[in-house]
Formats: sequence, C-alpha cells, structure tokens
Amino acid sequence: MEINSEICHTLSELFFCDMKYSQLFVKTQKELPAKEDSRNAELLLKAGFIQKEMAGVFSFLPLGLRVLNKIAHIVREEMNHVGAIEILMSVLSPKENWERTGRWNSMGVLYKLETATGKEVALSPTHEEIVTPLVQKFCRSHKDFPVCVYQVQAKFRNEPRAKSGLLRGREFLMKDAYSFHTSQEDFERYYLVQKKAYETIYNRLGIGDITYYVAASGGDFSKFSHEFQTRCETGEDTIFCIAGTKDCFNKEIAESQAPLVTYEDKSPLPMEDVKGVGIIGVEELAKYLKISVEKTTKTILFETENKGEVIAAAVRGNYDINEIKLKTIIGCKELRLATAETVKRVTGAEVGYAGILNLPKEIKVFMDDSMKGRINFEMGANKTDYHTINVNFGRDLPEPKTFYDIKVAQEGDIHPTSGKPYEVFKAIEVGNIFPLATKFSSSFNFKFTDENGKEFPILMGCYGIGISRIMGSLVEIFSDDKGMRWPMAVTPFHIYLAAIGRDDAVYDQAEKLYKDFQNVGIEVLYDDRRDKKVGPGQKFADHELMGIPARIVLSERTLEENSVEFVDRKTGNIQKIKIDDILPFVRTFLNVS
Amino acid sequence: MEINSEICHTLSELFFCDMKYSQLFVKTQKELPAKEDSRNAELLLKAGFIQKEMAGVFSFLPLGLRVLNKIAHIVREEMNHVGAIEILMSVLSPKENWERTGRWNSMGVLYKLETATGKEVALSPTHEEIVTPLVQKFCRSHKDFPVCVYQVQAKFRNEPRAKSGLLRGREFLMKDAYSFHTSQEDFERYYLVQKKAYETIYNRLGIGDITYYVAASGGDFSKFSHEFQTRCETGEDTIFCIAGTKDCFNKEIAESQAPLVTYEDKSPLPMEDVKGVGIIGVEELAKYLKISVEKTTKTILFETENKGEVIAAAVRGNYDINEIKLKTIIGCKELRLATAETVKRVTGAEVGYAGILNLPKEIKVFMDDSMKGRINFEMGANKTDYHTINVNFGRDLPEPKTFYDIKVAQEGDIHPTSGKPYEVFKAIEVGNIFPLATKFSSSFNFKFTDENGKEFPILMGCYGIGISRIMGSLVEIFSDDKGMRWPMAVTPFHIYLAAIGRDDAVYDQAEKLYKDFQNVGIEVLYDDRRDKKVGPGQKFADHELMGIPARIVLSERTLEENSVEFVDRKTGNIQKIKIDDILPFVRTFLNVS
Repeated sequence: MEINSEICHTLSELFFCDMKYSQLFVKTQKELPAKEDSRNAELLLKAGFIQKEMAGVFSFLPLGLRVLNKIAHIVREEMNHVGAIEILMSVLSPKENWERTGRWNSMGVLYKLETATGKEVALSPTHEEIVTPLVQKFCRSHKDFPVCVYQVQAKFRNEPRAKSGLLRGREFLMKDAYSFHTSQEDFERYYLVQKKAYETIYNRLGIGDITYYVAASGGDFSKFSHEFQTRCETGEDTIFCIAGTKDCFNKEIAESQAPLVTYEDKSPLPMEDVKGVGIIGVEELAKYLKISVEKTTKTILFETENKGEVIAAAVRGNYDINEIKLKTIIGCKELRLATAETVKRVTGAEVGYAGILNLPKEIKVFMDDSMKGRINFEMGANKTDYHTINVNFGRDLPEPKTFYDIKVAQEGDIHPTSGKPYEVFKAIEVGNIFPLATKFSSSFNFKFTDENGKEFPILMGCYGIGISRIMGSLVEIFSDDKGMRWPMAVTPFHIYLAAIGRDDAVYDQAEKLYKDFQNVGIEVLYDDRRDKKVGPGQKFADHELMGIPARIVLSERTLEENSVEFVDRKTGNIQKIKIDDILPFVRTFLNVS
Repeated sequence: MEINSEICHTLSELFFCDMKYSQLFVKTQKELPAKEDSRNAELLLKAGFIQKEMAGVFSFLPLGLRVLNKIAHIVREEMNHVGAIEILMSVLSPKENWERTGRWNSMGVLYKLETATGKEVALSPTHEEIVTPLVQKFCRSHKDFPVCVYQVQAKFRNEPRAKSGLLRGREFLMKDAYSFHTSQEDFERYYLVQKKAYETIYNRLGIGDITYYVAASGGDFSKFSHEFQTRCETGEDTIFCIAGTKDCFNKEIAESQAPLVTYEDKSPLPMEDVKGVGIIGVEELAKYLKISVEKTTKTILFETENKGEVIAAAVRGNYDINEIKLKTIIGCKELRLATAETVKRVTGAEVGYAGILNLPKEIKVFMDDSMKGRINFEMGANKTDYHTINVNFGRDLPEPKTFYDIKVAQEGDIHPTSGKPYEVFKAIEVGNIFPLATKFSSSFNFKFTDENGKEFPILMGCYGIGISRIMGSLVEIFSDDKGMRWPMAVTPFHIYLAAIGRDDAVYDQAEKLYKDFQNVGIEVLYDDRRDKKVGPGQKFADHELMGIPARIVLSERTLEENSVEFVDRKTGNIQKIKIDDILPFVRTFLNVS
C-alpha cells in the first residue's frame, strides 16, 4: 500500500485518523460466554470488533465497522473503475417479482413476511428480481447498453444453519453488481473486465497471491460460473487445480478420471451371491467380503422429473456420485434419490442391495469411468441381504459403450483432458461471478431493439462479493495464535500506540506523538488507559488480538532514551527507534507493508 | 458552503466528480405511470432519482444515491464531532429483546417474521432493544460513561399507510444515536450538545434559518421530547411558536388558552331541552339551535386503565380534546374513548348527547379553560336526541374550582404563561431528540457502579434523523414549478454541462471543460447526448427538473464568441461568460451559493 500525507488526508474523510482506547466503549474479552465454531467469530468477538445478536446475525462495533468500510471502499473503487454505477435497492421486495422468476417457492433461503396491508414481501437475498425490471424501465434501445449497476447493501438469508461467524450468516453485507448486454460477445468481454476488477480487489486486500479463479457450477442458469477461492486450511470448499497450471475447479464440478487400479487376480472367477446382512458402507463391506474397496461398487437409483423415469448410476466403491455431473449427462432438470418403494419395485430388494445385473431393461444405466477395466468386482445382488461377487464385464453383463465421468473428484484423480494430476486444497470463497444468460431477462420479457427495430433478449451477468464475509475470511487466513493480523489496506488503524505505566511525562509524550501521526493522516489507536489494573501485558495482548500491523510502546524506560519500541505484529520483531525518527520510520513501514 | 480544489479532491473520494448522461442508465420521465400523493415523490421519480418498488419502498438510483450519501456524510461528520462513535447494528433482532421492553406487542409498526429454525425476529424500526444490552455488555463502571453511539442504517416500519414519498416509508435510511449517562445533569448537558450538532446539520443543509427546535410529546418515556421542524407549506405537522420568540411547540402538546369570547346576552335565560335528531358536528348543531359555535360544548367520556373508571372532559364546541394533555392531568397511562355501552350506562343516552349535567357523582369531570366565563351555553342533555341550551354556571351546575388546558391548540390561541399569541405554521419534522430516562435501562436492568461501589440506573437519550426523509423534505421545501432545487451541500452534481447541437467542435470544447472541472474536483454532470431527438429544450428541462444549482450551455453560437451561457437554477439568471473565465467564475458561484 502506498501512503502519504495527501492520501491519508483524503482517507480521513472516510476514516478519521484518531481514536483513544478511553473513548472506545468496547473492551476486549478473555473468554467468550459460549464456544464459537470458527476462528473468525472467536477472535472478532473477543477483540470487540463485532457483537452477536443471534445465530448468524452480527452488529459491527467501531473497529469492526472500520474494517468493513475499508473493504467496501476498495470494492467500490474497483467497481467504479470498470464503469459500474452505484445504486441502492430496497431490502423489501414484492412477491410478484419473485413469482415471475419462479423463485418465490424454489428459493429456500427467502425470508418472507406479510405487511400490515396483507401484501407478501421477501427480504432480498440477491437482487435479480429487483434490478432486472429496474434497468428494463430505462433501457430499451441497443444504444443504452451495456449497463452495469451495483450496490453495497445488507442481504438476508433464512439459513437453517448459520455457521462460521461472518462466513455464513443470516444477515450480511454484500456488493452485488449486475450487467446487461446485447450480445454474448459483449457479455463475455465484460465478464473478463469484472474478473480483472476482482483480481485487483484481492491484490489490494493482500490475498491476490493465494486467491484462485475457479470454475464452478452454473446452477440452473448457465453451464458454468466462477468463484474466487482463497487458499485456507479452514475453508469449506475443496479446490482441484491442474498441477503446474492456474486452472482450478470447484470439487462439485471438477472433471476427473480415476487412477487405474491394478487388480492381483488376472482371470474371472465364478460369480457368486454372498449373504451379508445390514452391512453399512463400502469399507465394512470390503472387509466382510475380504476384497479391496476398489472391487466394491456403488449403484444408486435416481428418479428424474419425467414421471416414472428411473435411472441407475454406478461408480467404483471408493467414489461418490456427483449429481451435478449426472444431471448434465442425462440432460434432466431434476434428479432425486429414488424412494425406498421405487427401489423395491425396480430391484425387488430393499435399499442397499441395488446392482446393475438383472435390472429391468427400461432402466438406463450410467457407469463411471472408475468402473472401467475391473475384474471380479462386487455389486449389489438386487436381492435383500445379498451381494454378488466376481462380476465381470463381457461374461456377466455387457461392457458399456460409454463410460462417463459421474463421480465426485478425489485427491489423486487425474484431469481427463490434460492427463495431469490435480493439486487439491481447501479454500474460502471470497467472491463469485455468474453468467445469467437470459434466465431473468426472459422472466421479465426484457428485450432490446436493434438498429433495424427488431427485438432480442438481453443477456445478463452478476458479480457478487460478500463484504462482511471478506472480513471473516481475512481473519481465517491471517490470524495466528495471538490473534488477528490485518492487511494494511483494511486494518482498523495503522498503529497501536501503547503508553505504559503511570508517569505523566510518558502520557504527555504519547499525546504528542498521537497528534503528530494524526496531522499526517496516519491512523492511530492510542491505548491511553492509566488504570493500575491495565498493565503492559494486557495492552500488548489487546494489540496482538486486535491485529493492528504495528505497536509503538512508550514507557519511562524508553523515554529515558528518547525512544520508542516499535513492534511489527506480523514478524514480532522489536526495534528501538528514536522519537525524532519515528514518523519517517512509520511512513516507510506503511509503504512497504 | 466553502469549496476549493483541496476540499473537492477530498470529497471526490466519496463522490467521484464526473458523470456523463450517456453513462447514466437512468432517464427522466415526463409523466408517471400513476399519480403520486406528494411533490417529493413526483419530482424524484420523474427525475429518475428514485424508483418505487412498492408503496413506501424505494430504491435509490445514481443521482438520488449521491444526494443520500452527501446528507449521510454531513450527519456523520457532525456526529463524530460530538464524540458519538459509529457502529452498525443488525436489522434482524430477536423477539426476547422486544419482550423485555414490552414493545413486541405494543409497537404496531414492528415487522415480525419467523426464521427457518422457528425463531421469531423483528425488523428493527429503532434500536433501543439492541443498543441497550450492547453498551451494557461493555460499560458497567461510572468511568465508562458517558457513551454515545450512532449508526446510519435501513429501518423498517410496517406502516398501514405509507405516504408522501420519502417522508413516510416502510423502508428508509436513518441515523440513530443513543447516549448513556450516569446522571440527569450529564444527560441534560449532552442533550444540548446533540441539539447543537443538529442545528449545525440543518445549517449545512441550507435549512437552518427555517428550522425550529420544537417541544413535543415525550410519549410514555418522558415528559417531553424535541423535534426539529422545518417550515414548509406541505408539512404535516402544525407548529405553535410564541410570537416574537423562538419557543415552539408541536400542536399535540402546545399549551393554550382560548381567547375570550364576548357573548351578546348578558343575563341567564331559562334552561331548556331542545330536540335535535341526528345532528352531526358542532357547526350543524349551532346552526340548528341558532346560537354561535362558541356556545356549544363538546363533552367526551373516556375510560382509563383502571377497571370501571370513566371520566368526562368538556371543551368549548370549537375545540377538540387533546388526549395527551388530558392523560397528563389525570395521571393515567391509558385513555380510550368510552364504548357506546359505557356511554349509555353512564349518561342513559346514545353516543352524541353527553353533557356534564346530571352525570353520576363518581364520574370525574375535567373542564377546559375555554369553558370559563360562558353564559347561556349549550350542552348534551344526557338524553337521546336532546340538547340543553342556556346552561349557566352557578345556577345549573357549580363552576369548577379548576379549569384545565385539555384542548388541542388552535390558531388564535394564547400561550398561557407569557400571555402572548401564537404564530402557527406548517412544518416537516426533519429530526428529533428524545430523553429516554430509565425506560430501557430498567428493562435490561442496566446499572452502573459509582465510586463507592453502589449501583444506580443508567439514563439514556436518543437522537434520530431520517436521512432519506431529509432528502424528500429538501424537495418539498425547495422545489418550484420547473422541478427540484438542491442546496449546494447535497446537490448530486454542482454543474449541469449541456452541449447543444451536433457540431463536433462544441462537443470537443465541452469535453475539455468537463475534464477541467473534474481536475479541480468540481462535480459535473455532462449532458453529452447528441441524439437528434434530444433538443436544447429537453436538456434544459432535464436540468431544471434535476435541480442542479447551475447549468453551463455550450453551443455553436456561444462557441463563436468563445463563451458559455451560465444559468443559475435558483434565480433563472443567464450570464454570458468567456470560456477562459468560467472556472474562476464557477468557483465563486459555488462559494457564495
């Protein structure tokens, strides 16, 4: 980050430079009343950056709000920079709009309420339903496009399980942008412009080098979408990155080829049904049958949206079926696990004993490539309590013409096209961009008129970044055993100034330093507590917990030497700096950090 | 307002200086799809500053958002200036908190909803229920006080009737501050500090000279509160100002003494019951009885919260009963109109014929001072269809020892203590400050410990200002027949630069001017539309509707003379200015406006 007095003065309009601990009504807490499920909640609560109002709902206290505002400010600057125009849409949004897109019923996280006049409204968790008719109202001619609007606004999600502090809340601050285009080419061009803006944001936040552009599911709208995923041990997403490249995929859609398994037995053995009652899981089954897990098979029956249609999918036992992939291959809209009744009707057996052998002809079977090249493998016998072993393609059932990739990718899998192995890591989603195609424009019949007066549908994209989620993510990513460590760009203050002891001279000098920093726009939190109960240990611990990049300590001892102690929060390095040199020293520190 | 390049550069961090009409996706509208009930809604919608999502719910479009942000910025600066610390509390707030204060059921405008986990929550219309336990968590010792926190946040009110555009909405932006004190003296001191901050805000908004500090009802919490009321013909409040002073009262609490009426008849006439069936209103009654309205009497029966207690209140016919005053005098908590059954039971007559004569002894009677000195007056006969005329104190009923002030003040009334007449005017409430005493601290058992370790309850105050309401108010106050007229401090842009015609040289020069203004931080909306269909008339009308303080017009004609046309939106004055002189000219204009 570059910092100089001019920039600082500018920023100070937004973030006044000074605060004294004695003015800050918030205090740090050593212990929380209840255990939190995440590091970010624990540290932010202990440090008094946020307050929990209920599960998944937080208030932002002075230091937390400063971080939040700084993140929002960076995001706004980069959005403005790519021509997105800021607006502010309402939280309350009428049922009619959600009915037009079909999401009034399909979106589970929609908070709904009834007004005094009997009207039903939603608390918007996202704004396609508002922004589409809004832009449509003003833009009809090809000359009006492209358009991109954005907002920074509180969003609401009726999550059954809020978790991970600021990472998955019921009320959270979000930047959402929406773009409108007259052609696929223009949409794709702008999609990359937004991608670049996002990359700049992550660079400015200090996480550019560990943030990946990851292909993800496009949901019902589109073939694909993209997430920005920041590498982090505590992340809930699993990222598959083609080794030696930057090509990344979310686990949910990562194409994968199972590594070949060499089986010891070379020739087919006699097929046999083995009784095995109530065995749960492939590990247990393999053990019971005394075969390797790779010889077991998972066969799952699904029903599609077409009445009565049942399909079977099979993978090698150590894999799981990926329903997103399967849906795409089948080309169906809905896919749900077959009910116990359906399983019984189709296989003749209870759930847990399905196999591909002897299935009724009308059941389409999809086999994963992990099934390829196996000999003497196991499979449900379609008979309650029985497993068939030593099944072989060719002899017992025909080898399918096509094997598919319908498995959830695993560490050790191969990227099929390149043949390269995957590097797999945990990450936190810190943003996503999404082609919406004509999903919403067609719901609202939003068309533009071209040069010849002909009408064509508008193409849309959306671009989201959770401002409060970023705040939580930065804690997950940068904290250590002492507390948080804020990147310079979003730290609540640049400097934590700790005056030690009860000597007036120390506090006079601290006050002077405080003012000097203020004058050049360096943001200082001055720990001016003179209470006997607050010793240096407490002050240092508070600083470390709060994660402000540097601490300057003034005490009788340092004052004797006309110096201060300068502590780098990140490295823990302590340097003695002459008081006269501290201002230029800090400036340099801020510039290089 | 003072403006110079330095200030501008600073502001530009918040409000980038430039925008071209062609980049702005919004367009003005000549006609609205439906008639609006207020000038602010009509003009803001026509100008494309806001979008109506449903009754009382608006989105803010680029120009509207700029105004909103500038208002919020001024408010934030003045709050910071009086030591209030910014936080951001949640919208969702748990039922328990509202039950503790008793407002879960008593607050009619509370939006309530149930979450996926079955928990009931409110959408906060105000934040006492959140802020009180929040500050309580951190502040317990006398040393921790005073504390004042504030936020700028969307608020929600389940209004049965949203109206007047941004003035009374269901979702609106608000600044709410809350202060906490250990003594009444300290509270009173800070209350005046906040008052002063509010006055500074109104001065900066350009409405200081027409904004009044008005005593208003304290509701259930407190004896009084204060509103800031800006004089405006379209305002919904009526303000009573003691002539020649700045002492103002909201109509709801204005103490008043009725002007004496001289009655022509000097001696008592025989009392008589006159039949008069189904006569509605005192005007009609007076006409029917051939007496002046001043001779009629309104007698109203009320029930209090004490089971079975009924009281009667009487005013001269041309007044109404003020229930707030009456409650205070009786010293009761609740007061409701007696039911028809109660009226029948007590008076023996249907509703509409109550009088003070012949009432049961246990009914306490309160008479307004407007009853004083009357002779031969009318009164309900406590007999269905009958009115008694020529009633006289002394002869027909005892003159009460005390007359009270229990009337709704009217124009022409006298301020009782000073004896001076009132000046009465319409106004819009643009803010209010409110002593909360121990109302909320006692709900949450919020106490502080003094020097001796003794516990005492905390005193609170709250300070509200509707940011979006201010925006609507400024339109009501400053608009003219052509459109809005924004004060310099909150105008979306300083200058509307209109290039006229289709000549390249004009647009080249306009572009140059646009950049020059940008460089010194003067905010310009550049109307760069070259579409043949958009003539000068449309551009000028758009400017006037949007209400930007000045318009600079460049055309072939002005370019020939190396000049521009400068139009002052407020006065309509047009000046020809040399292009080389326009920058310093505009600076001067901005400084004096």
